Amino acid sequence: MEIKIMKNILDRNQNKAEEVRNILKMNKVMMVNIISSPGAGKTTLLEKICGEMATTFRIGIIEGDITTDRDAQRLKRFNIPIVVINTEGGCHLDSHSIYSVLGSFDLEKIDVLFVENVGNLVCPSQFDLGETFKLAVVSTTEGDDKPAKYPMLFREAKAVLLNKTDLIPYTNFSIDNFRSDLKMINGMVPLFEVSLTRGDGLPDWFEWISTQIRISLIYSI
Amino acid sequence: MEIKIMKNILDRNQNKAEEVRNILKMNKVMMVNIISSPGAGKTTLLEKICGEMATTFRIGIIEGDITTDRDAQRLKRFNIPIVVINTEGGCHLDSHSIYSVLGSFDLEKIDVLFVENVGNLVCPSQFDLGETFKLAVVSTTEGDDKPAKYPMLFREAKAVLLNKTDLIPYTNFSIDNFRSDLKMINGMVPLFEVSLTRGDGLPDWFEWISTQIRISLIYSI
Repeated sequence: MEIKIMKNILDRNQNKAEEVRNILKMNKVMMVNIISSPGAGKTTLLEKICGEMATTFRIGIIEGDITTDRDAQRLKRFNIPIVVINTEGGCHLDSHSIYSVLGSFDLEKIDVLFVENVGNLVCPSQFDLGETFKLAVVSTTEGDDKPAKYPMLFREAKAVLLNKTDLIPYTNFSIDNFRSDLKMINGMVPLFEVSLTRGDGLPDWFEWISTQIRISLIYSI
Repeated sequence: MEIKIMKNILDRNQNKAEEVRNILKMNKVMMVNIISSPGAGKTTLLEKICGEMATTFRIGIIEGDITTDRDAQRLKRFNIPIVVINTEGGCHLDSHSIYSVLGSFDLEKIDVLFVENVGNLVCPSQFDLGETFKLAVVSTTEGDDKPAKYPMLFREAKAVLLNKTDLIPYTNFSIDNFRSDLKMINGMVPLFEVSLTRGDGLPDWFEWISTQIRISLIYSI
């Protein structure tokens, strides 16, 4: 019974996701659905992105949170359009909630819309929001076994950002184990090993994400 | 519509949870439902508990994992009864899955059953498994804002274990912010600040959990 219910929910979500995707295409807006565990660094990533790229690209942000607007508060100093979606206990964003806030943005004046999903490595990966692609963020302090134990997200993601590499010396994290597990799950996915607080590895990441936005602006993929 | 469906699922879960609870009571088994984000230290906690307490109490473990039996593999050296539940993509354990594996244990020979839930700070807190109580595990590297951002679990938990205190010097984690947020959400909850890898703070924790087991054996709460 529950499987059938879940299928209905996912079907309805998928239909609305396609509507969202069409609206974004028409407006040449790339949408990135950022997914991670709580505290892996999604908001810090957005801070770095805004700091580095807000003069080059027109950025918008959708902040998904169960409750509070703390993440949005951290980002408002960048003076870019931000909309908060409080899920009120819900464990993921869905395409209906994204659709309902699209009207709050002047999409003609946005190149890229970053969606910070609810902190959860499981449920968000099952819901298409109409995004251009999913970005997986994971931190070294969570352990090197996360791709093997939570494969769905890593299979779906177009890129993986491994954060907190500066903390590796203080943990038992094995970068070789992490890389080889990830390779088995998604052999071709680009992996960016970064320390968001220290800045290590960020130039490669910025080059990659900038290229994605430029491609989107030209081809509206 | 989805709210009604969710209510039905939760009602059915609650009924089965009461059945589980009765079975455990009859057998004087305490059950602890351990909930955390991925990589906060649930399995390491179980390793420490088995190492310290397996000669004093008769321990059983239920390992909830989306896929793989990696956590159970880490625990099998302790020679205690372990059952793995693979949720196959499901984001939490429910009372039906617990009920279905209870028969695998000789409950008359068990004092305490630890359940390692799926790594997820959101969904598991909404599903009563029939446990005696929920234990929240959270790590400093996730950030000090987790109780405020994910209040459900911290409201429900009978105790909170803050792990990875050894990494505080390398992060911007504020123990004062963490404590004051937690106090607002659940003023009376005992907080154990520990480093599972280094052993800091563990004596207090072992004393507390041992007392809970002893109370359960006497009063079968």
